Amino acid sequence: MFQTFDVKSDPSTGPARLAALRNKMTDLGVDALLVPHGDEHQNEYLPPRAERLAWLTGFTGSAGACLVLADKAVVFVDGRYTLQARDQTDAGAFEIGDLISQGPVKWLEANARKRMKVAFDPWLHSAAAATNLKRAAEAVGFELVALDDNPLDAIWTDQPALPAEPVRIQRKELAGTTAKSKLRDIQKAVRAQKADAVIATDPTSICWLFNIRGNDVTHTPLVLSWAIIPARGMAQLFLDEAKLGIEENAYLTQLADLHPYADFADAIDALAKRAKIVMVDPNQCAEAITKKLEVGGVELLKEQDPCALPRACKNRVELKGATEAHKRDGAAMVTFLAWLDAQDADTLDEISVAKKLEACRAETGKRLDVPLRDLSFDTICGSGPNGAIVHYRVTEATNRRMNSGELLLMDSGAQYDDGTTDITRVIPLGKPNDEYRRHFTLVLKGMIAISEVRFPEGTRGVDLDGLARRALWAEGLDYGHGTGHGIGSYLAVHEGPQNISKRGMASFQTGMIVSNEPGYYRTGSHGIRIENLVYVKPSKVPKNGGEIPVHAFETLTLCPIDRRLVDRKLLSKQERRWLNRYHAKVRRTLTPLLEDADTIAWLEQATNRI
Amino acid sequence: MFQTFDVKSDPSTGPARLAALRNKMTDLGVDALLVPHGDEHQNEYLPPRAERLAWLTGFTGSAGACLVLADKAVVFVDGRYTLQARDQTDAGAFEIGDLISQGPVKWLEANARKRMKVAFDPWLHSAAAATNLKRAAEAVGFELVALDDNPLDAIWTDQPALPAEPVRIQRKELAGTTAKSKLRDIQKAVRAQKADAVIATDPTSICWLFNIRGNDVTHTPLVLSWAIIPARGMAQLFLDEAKLGIEENAYLTQLADLHPYADFADAIDALAKRAKIVMVDPNQCAEAITKKLEVGGVELLKEQDPCALPRACKNRVELKGATEAHKRDGAAMVTFLAWLDAQDADTLDEISVAKKLEACRAETGKRLDVPLRDLSFDTICGSGPNGAIVHYRVTEATNRRMNSGELLLMDSGAQYDDGTTDITRVIPLGKPNDEYRRHFTLVLKGMIAISEVRFPEGTRGVDLDGLARRALWAEGLDYGHGTGHGIGSYLAVHEGPQNISKRGMASFQTGMIVSNEPGYYRTGSHGIRIENLVYVKPSKVPKNGGEIPVHAFETLTLCPIDRRLVDRKLLSKQERRWLNRYHAKVRRTLTPLLEDADTIAWLEQATNRI
Repeated sequence: MFQTFDVKSDPSTGPARLAALRNKMTDLGVDALLVPHGDEHQNEYLPPRAERLAWLTGFTGSAGACLVLADKAVVFVDGRYTLQARDQTDAGAFEIGDLISQGPVKWLEANARKRMKVAFDPWLHSAAAATNLKRAAEAVGFELVALDDNPLDAIWTDQPALPAEPVRIQRKELAGTTAKSKLRDIQKAVRAQKADAVIATDPTSICWLFNIRGNDVTHTPLVLSWAIIPARGMAQLFLDEAKLGIEENAYLTQLADLHPYADFADAIDALAKRAKIVMVDPNQCAEAITKKLEVGGVELLKEQDPCALPRACKNRVELKGATEAHKRDGAAMVTFLAWLDAQDADTLDEISVAKKLEACRAETGKRLDVPLRDLSFDTICGSGPNGAIVHYRVTEATNRRMNSGELLLMDSGAQYDDGTTDITRVIPLGKPNDEYRRHFTLVLKGMIAISEVRFPEGTRGVDLDGLARRALWAEGLDYGHGTGHGIGSYLAVHEGPQNISKRGMASFQTGMIVSNEPGYYRTGSHGIRIENLVYVKPSKVPKNGGEIPVHAFETLTLCPIDRRLVDRKLLSKQERRWLNRYHAKVRRTLTPLLEDADTIAWLEQATNRI
Repeated sequence: MFQTFDVKSDPSTGPARLAALRNKMTDLGVDALLVPHGDEHQNEYLPPRAERLAWLTGFTGSAGACLVLADKAVVFVDGRYTLQARDQTDAGAFEIGDLISQGPVKWLEANARKRMKVAFDPWLHSAAAATNLKRAAEAVGFELVALDDNPLDAIWTDQPALPAEPVRIQRKELAGTTAKSKLRDIQKAVRAQKADAVIATDPTSICWLFNIRGNDVTHTPLVLSWAIIPARGMAQLFLDEAKLGIEENAYLTQLADLHPYADFADAIDALAKRAKIVMVDPNQCAEAITKKLEVGGVELLKEQDPCALPRACKNRVELKGATEAHKRDGAAMVTFLAWLDAQDADTLDEISVAKKLEACRAETGKRLDVPLRDLSFDTICGSGPNGAIVHYRVTEATNRRMNSGELLLMDSGAQYDDGTTDITRVIPLGKPNDEYRRHFTLVLKGMIAISEVRFPEGTRGVDLDGLARRALWAEGLDYGHGTGHGIGSYLAVHEGPQNISKRGMASFQTGMIVSNEPGYYRTGSHGIRIENLVYVKPSKVPKNGGEIPVHAFETLTLCPIDRRLVDRKLLSKQERRWLNRYHAKVRRTLTPLLEDADTIAWLEQATNRI
C-alpha cells in the first residue's frame, strides 16, 4: 500500500518542543523565528527530514507556516485546513491564523516591534518570499536575521536523514527526448539571455532535464538534487552517488560532473567567484543561494525556470505514454467502480474503499505489465459531508461509514512509468436525490464547456476559467478552487506554468496537460467534482473558412461519468452529444483491457447513451 | 452638425515644421525629442492647442507618438492606424513604426546611443510613462532631459489658445449626489490613506466631483481644470473664471477656492512645501507634477484616482438618466434605421448616412425636449470593406458610395444631459449573403452570452471576456479588440476602471456601465460589431437554493438587432428566447416615443419573433 491512514501527528508534543525552540532562540538572541512548510527545493511533498512544521506544531497539512515568538506562536493555514489545524495543535501553545488574508508577512507588518529580530532559515524560503520579508522589515523597521543553521534541527534529535532512494533512468522510449538534447536547449536559453549559468533547484526540473526518476519523496518520483547548467561546457549535478547503480552512474557521468549533494553550497560560492550573470527563478530558488551569488557580486537574472515550459509541453512520446497510462488507469477505475456498485453502501467505509481502489490499480498495472509505481497523491475518499471538504484525507481518526443515499467523491491518481494520472468521480450510493443530480449536472456542464472549447494561440487559463463556472454562477453557485492545474509526465501531479484559474496567466501551448475539474461543495452535506485530464493540441481548421489557428483540449482520462447523477433536461443537445461520444470512446477503448465479465457488463451499462 | 468630415491634415507641411523643430533642438543641445499624442491631463480627446503630433507630422489618429532625431523621425502608431499614418505623413520625412510591438521606449532601448540627450515635455507624459523612459535611459545609458518649455510650441506660431467654453452645473436631479457629499467621501479616502492631499488631474474626475460640465474638448463635456483636494478643509480648483457665469461662480466658490488654471504649477510648488504625503495616480498625473512634489521632498502615494471607482458606480439617479437617454437614443436610432431601409442602397454614401443619423438624434432630442449636446464620438459609418476598419472615420477623402448586397457598420453615440450612449448596429444593404449571416450570428451569440451571464462578486472583465468569443473561436475566428469598455454619465465614452477584455482586472460593482460589443472583421470585405450598453445590478437570488449573491447585466440600449442577419439555426433555444424578449422590450418601450406611422410600422416588423 502506498497510502497510509494513520494519524500522523499528536498535539501533545507541541508545547515541550516549542519551549525547547524558544530556549534556542534566546541563545541566538532572536525574538521571532519563522518555521515554514517547505524544504530547500520548494517541494510540494517534503522528505520526512523537512517536516519541521509538523514536528513542531502537530499540523500536517500541505501548506502553512508557524511564526514563533517569545510569548506566542501562530500557525498560519488556509481555509481548507482551519479545522484540521485546530484538531492537530495544542490550543494553549499555538494560535491559528489565516495564511491567505494575513500570513506571517502581514502579521509582522501589523504587529512586529521596531528593531525586533526576526529570524528565518534562508534555505527554506524562496528568494521571492524573502523579498517580501525584507520589504516588511524595511517598512516596519524590524531586523531580519538569516540564520546559518536551523535551530529547530538542533533540538530535533531524531530528525530523519535525507532520503537515499535509488535513481532510475527514464528511458528515451518514455521521455521522447534525450537528456543531451534537453541540456543543449537549456544551454542555448542561457546563452540567449547572455548569462553564464542557470541554477536548477527544482528536482522536478532536474529529473526532467536528466531523464531520471527516484523515490525521495512520497507520491512524486523525485531525486533530491541540485544542478548548475553553464552556458557552455559540462553541467554540474549534485546528488549522492549512493543512489546510483553502475548503469545510472555511467549514464549521468556522460551528462554532468557529479558531486555530492552536500557540496552544492560550496559550488555556489565558487560559481559566484567566476560568473558575472546567473539565471535563477526567484519563486523556486532558495534565498540562501541568491544571497551567496549576490554577495559574490553576481548579477542575478530573475527568470522563470527555463525547464518549466519545455517540461510542460509534452512531446509525442510523452503524450503517447500519457494516453497508455490513462487507458490502464481507466481499466483500474472501471474495475473499482463495478466492484463498488455491487456492494451494499451501508457496509462500506472510506478507508476500505480507498484501499480497494489502490488494489485495483496495483492489480491492473500488474496484469497489463506496467506496474503501479505510486499513487500520485493520497486518495481523497469523502463520503457524504466529507465530500465537501476539498482536500479531505481520510485517516483512522476521521474514517466514516457510508450510508445509502449519499454521494461519494473520489479524487485519486497514479504514477506509472509512462505517465501520471489524476481523476475525480462522484458515485451515488443508492438512489441520488434531485438536488444532488441538479448540482452534479451543473458541474458537468462546466466540465463539458472546457472539454469542447476551441481557442486561439495566446489564450491563457484565465481566459477559459469562466466557461467552467457559467452554469453554476447562473444558479448562484460557485467553487472555491481553480478549474485545472498542469501535470507532469511521470512527475509532479501539480506542475506549472499553465493552469485554468483566475490567476492563469500562462498561454496554452501544444502538448500541455491540464486538469479539467470544476466542482461544487455544500458544507455539511455533499461535495461534487468531475475531473478529467486533457492536453492541448492544434484543432483541425474549421470548415466554413476559419481564419486563425485554434487549439482544443483532447481528453486523456477514460472512465464513465455516472449517468445516474445526470439530469438530462439540464443538458443542451450539444452537451448530451459530448457525453454520449465520450462514453462511446470509453467503452470502445477500455473493453479490450478488461477480463472480468461482470466488469465488462458494468461498463456497458455505465456508458449507455443518455 | 457636431461631426465634420473634412480632411484635417496635409502631409506637405511636415518637412518644414520638422526642420524648424530640429533647429530648436540644436539650440537646446538635445539629440532627440518625444512628441506624444497627449496633453497635460492625459485626455482622450485633445483641445486643438494640444494637437502637436498632428501639427508636426500630419497624422491625426487618436493614439501615437513621434520620436524626432537629427537624421530621422519615427511616427509610432498601432495597427489600426498604419495605413492612415502612411497616407497622412510625408514619407521622406517620417518613418512609420509600430506603437505596440515597439514604441518609442523600446526603440530607444534598441537604438539610442550612450550619453545621447533625449528630451521630453514632462507635462505631456504621465508619471508612469516617464518611469518607463527613465528605466530605458538607465539601462542604455542615454540622458533623459525634462524640458521646461516645449520647443514645438515655440515654432507653432498660430497655436490655438486654450479653450474657454462656459461651465454648466450638472444639477443634483441628474447627478444624484451633491458635490459636497462627493468631496467629503474623497477627503475621507485621503485621510484613510494618511495622506495630506490628492491631486486631481483628470478633467473627467473633476467634472464628476464638482458636478460641472463644459465643452473644452470635442465629444466629451469636459472643463479643462485641475484640483487639489486636501485631507481636511477647502479644495483648490484651478480653472479660468471667464468660463463661469454668476451662478456657476457662486456655486463653485462654496465648494472650493478658485484659482486661475495657469496658477496650478505654482500651487503644486506651494503644496510641496507644506505637505508630507500626497496621493497621485501615476497613470493620470503628469510627470511634471510628481517631479515637483518629489523635489519638494513629498512622499508620493501612488494610487488609482480615488474618483475613478465612485464615478464608475452610477447611482440610482444616474442609472435612471442613462435609461431615459437610451430610450431617446433608441427612438432616434429607429427613426434612422426606418429611413435607411426605405432608401435605395446604391444612392447612399457614408457621409450622408452619418449626417442623417446625427440629424435623427438632434430632431428626436428636440422633439422629446432633451437636446442632443454632442455626439459621444465621431460616428463610425463603414460600408462594405470600410466596415472591417475597426476605428474607421469617414472623411471627404474616404467617403464611399454604398452598394446593394453589402453590410453597413454604424458605431455611434450621443451626449445628453442625462447620459452618454454608444451603440453599434450592422445593417444589410439589400439581401445579405449566407457568410455575412453566419458571421453575424456567431458575433450575436457572444453578445447574448454577455447579456445573459450572471456572476459572483469579485468577478472581473477578464473572467467574462472568453464567453463573448467562444462561438467565434470554435469556428477559427476572433476579434482584435476588447469586448467592452466603461462609460461615463454624460462624461467620457471610455471610462475606467472596469472593462471586459483580457486586461480587465477591475471587479464589477453595482451600477457600473460597460459596453458589450463583440465583433468580427474580414479585411477587404466586411465588418460586424453588435454593441449594447449594459449596467451591473444585483441579480435575484436564483430559485433552487442559490448560495452566493450574483450580479447580472441589465441592458440599457434599445434598438432592434437586424433579424435579416440572424441565422436562426445557429442559435440555441435560450439564445432565441433572449433575442425575442429583447425585441419585445424594444418595441414596447420605443413605440410610445415615436410619432411617424411608417417608423412605428418598421419597428413592429423589425422586432417580430424569430
